[in-house]
Amino acid sequence: MTKLSPADHIETAEIIAIGTELLLGQTLDTNSFYLSRKLSDLGINTFRRQVVGDHRERIYDAICQALEANDLVITTGGLGASQDDITVQVLAEISGKDLVEDSSVTAAIRKLYPDSDRPDFIIPRIPAGAKAFPNKNGTAPASLTTFLYKGKLVHVLVLPGPPSENIPLFEEQVIPYLAQYSSASFIHRYVRMIGIGEYKMEQELKDLIAGQTNPTIAPYASEGEVLLRISQRLEEGDTDKTQALIDIIKERLGEYIYEIGTRSLEQVVAEKLHSQKLTCAFAESCTGGALSARLVSLPDTSKIFKGSIVSYASSVKKDLLGVDPEIIDKYGVVSAECARAMAENCRRLFKADLNLSVTGFAGPGGGTPENPPGTVYFAITVGDKVSVQRKFFSGNRQRIINYAVATALDLLRRSCAE
Amino acid sequence: MTKLSPADHIETAEIIAIGTELLLGQTLDTNSFYLSRKLSDLGINTFRRQVVGDHRERIYDAICQALEANDLVITTGGLGASQDDITVQVLAEISGKDLVEDSSVTAAIRKLYPDSDRPDFIIPRIPAGAKAFPNKNGTAPASLTTFLYKGKLVHVLVLPGPPSENIPLFEEQVIPYLAQYSSASFIHRYVRMIGIGEYKMEQELKDLIAGQTNPTIAPYASEGEVLLRISQRLEEGDTDKTQALIDIIKERLGEYIYEIGTRSLEQVVAEKLHSQKLTCAFAESCTGGALSARLVSLPDTSKIFKGSIVSYASSVKKDLLGVDPEIIDKYGVVSAECARAMAENCRRLFKADLNLSVTGFAGPGGGTPENPPGTVYFAITVGDKVSVQRKFFSGNRQRIINYAVATALDLLRRSCAE
Repeated sequence: MTKLSPADHIETAEIIAIGTELLLGQTLDTNSFYLSRKLSDLGINTFRRQVVGDHRERIYDAICQALEANDLVITTGGLGASQDDITVQVLAEISGKDLVEDSSVTAAIRKLYPDSDRPDFIIPRIPAGAKAFPNKNGTAPASLTTFLYKGKLVHVLVLPGPPSENIPLFEEQVIPYLAQYSSASFIHRYVRMIGIGEYKMEQELKDLIAGQTNPTIAPYASEGEVLLRISQRLEEGDTDKTQALIDIIKERLGEYIYEIGTRSLEQVVAEKLHSQKLTCAFAESCTGGALSARLVSLPDTSKIFKGSIVSYASSVKKDLLGVDPEIIDKYGVVSAECARAMAENCRRLFKADLNLSVTGFAGPGGGTPENPPGTVYFAITVGDKVSVQRKFFSGNRQRIINYAVATALDLLRRSCAE
Repeated sequence: MTKLSPADHIETAEIIAIGTELLLGQTLDTNSFYLSRKLSDLGINTFRRQVVGDHRERIYDAICQALEANDLVITTGGLGASQDDITVQVLAEISGKDLVEDSSVTAAIRKLYPDSDRPDFIIPRIPAGAKAFPNKNGTAPASLTTFLYKGKLVHVLVLPGPPSENIPLFEEQVIPYLAQYSSASFIHRYVRMIGIGEYKMEQELKDLIAGQTNPTIAPYASEGEVLLRISQRLEEGDTDKTQALIDIIKERLGEYIYEIGTRSLEQVVAEKLHSQKLTCAFAESCTGGALSARLVSLPDTSKIFKGSIVSYASSVKKDLLGVDPEIIDKYGVVSAECARAMAENCRRLFKADLNLSVTGFAGPGGGTPENPPGTVYFAITVGDKVSVQRKFFSGNRQRIINYAVATALDLLRRSCAE
């Protein structure tokens, strides 16, 4: 194996996404976006990105062009199930390496595909001497090939196309491997907020964002949540200046901050429940199971999550959950009263410590003049107490559901004592 | 103004997205995705895409490289509010045109910004002779400059960066303008399958995929599903050859096909339930609500979906769902017997026409020697009949959950009479 030495600093990278489906606009290329961000975290500059089709010559030209100006070239996709993994073949040609089987790759494939010892099953190969990163979620392995290109030491990282394969592979194996070769070191810290809009947040922090040089503050908004990344480039002898900045942000926007670090909202909630030995249960209507699913996406949830009733039909709210039919007749299913009754009945049935209900109009149809589509009621029981909230979210159906799920998780978080 | 003549067919294009924030992974580039799709609809091939930073030299190099191989180059972004619109300055340099004010652009800006007659307000300029596309939602106009580059007639379309400006501009003004110059049109058809791996599908269709010229077949796999795209480039007088190809695919792999068209698996299931006036309900364990949420992501599900119980804790399976504790003690919660009892109790509680249960080990922990992580049992009641299936999925927790959800939807689909 060609081993990188610490002297082989990687300064700049180019990302090449391969796939005719990308050029036809059938698939959105989220890989390059993800990789750009991760490279930036590693202190590696992305010089350029390209998207090319599944076409031998164009892949060849793209890699060669990218190698002219960069130390590291990353490709995603263009790795077919078997004989048509053009990218690796092109790389073998450019680097002058043979393609060989790698035992760690073979082992991962045997595990994922128990019938892969059939003679017609073709084990994918990687360039000789490359560092292999076996894929636990698909056939095509990742590999990092290091070689001399026109007298310069270069590295080509080949990654599979599907984000479900690509991301775990990059997170778990590639980042730790690349981290040792980035020349500058960075401190990246994250402040995560919920319940505040991007606009309001930017107004409150205008002076800090505008006056940024080092550390810098970069805001990112996703549905219902806002993330600030504070980055400081550390040269030798520099001291950490990020905490001072975080202290100012906490002073101004503390009430919205749920995490200073890398945990997701559901992770913060789950860890609070675990540490306080609390259980929760849900009665979901308009979120249709999405709230439960987000919590269950984490492992080891059985100690903190009892279960939920997705009471989508009105009859289920009455018969199975036990909401008084009079409440529904008088106030409707999207009402503070119905939300309250759903949470109370959730508690009666599941006997969890925290019982939360969500009922609303996710749209596009439905709604009333008082409660138009986008209106969502939340109720939560903590001991004998029930509290109810009404929120209004705009946007399409999926956005309203995502906002409602984030808001429900935040309500759970706030209901756990510190 | 240089006018395109119908002889100036545009065959291939390259898209260049400009913005350092794109390279840092702070903004997802959706413009290039949108433009690729629209160009494909216009019969213009996207040859390559690039992303470069806000850097004069790199923009210059990117445009020149792109002009070598293409008739049309489209740039997005890199148009500052006023004096720093590097892209237009670089284009002026490459095309040898002066920058001039355009009366339609000025009029649009006066309308959007009533105070734009202030002396310090700088009206953006476009290359002399370019076709102007005034921007109704922002400052920077779009323009199409046609000129000779190394003796070849080329076109450079400059678009603003924000999708909220870019998309209406492209839809309303640029598409009608470009449409008259595209020479070919395409037929795209889709075959969607579930329950077959990508590898097996490629083996079965090897001859068709390898022998492809026009129409072409391109396979795409996502978690649990496989999509084939059949594309034919239509020149004048050509007939549609896609159906003949689809007929062969149906003959070989018909049992796995759930859709010939653009509907998702949940849409196919929902439409079957609607048309047959059937209702469904679920008892979910390892999928934790994700199955229900996928159905509820569609509007108007209340007629076909009653609800579900997410019986995550064993106690909920017993007390709330009503599974006989003896079954759990004897066979465990991940067993054919427990899946069957969950489906039967689901039917008892929800009284839906189709009652489906999912119970399994999503990992990474848990499992037994007979049922390792990845083992999932499914049961479904149709009338008085219950059927049970055992499946094994590999990969990480999220992949196992996604496969289980897709498999459950397929089971529902197969349980609806034709």
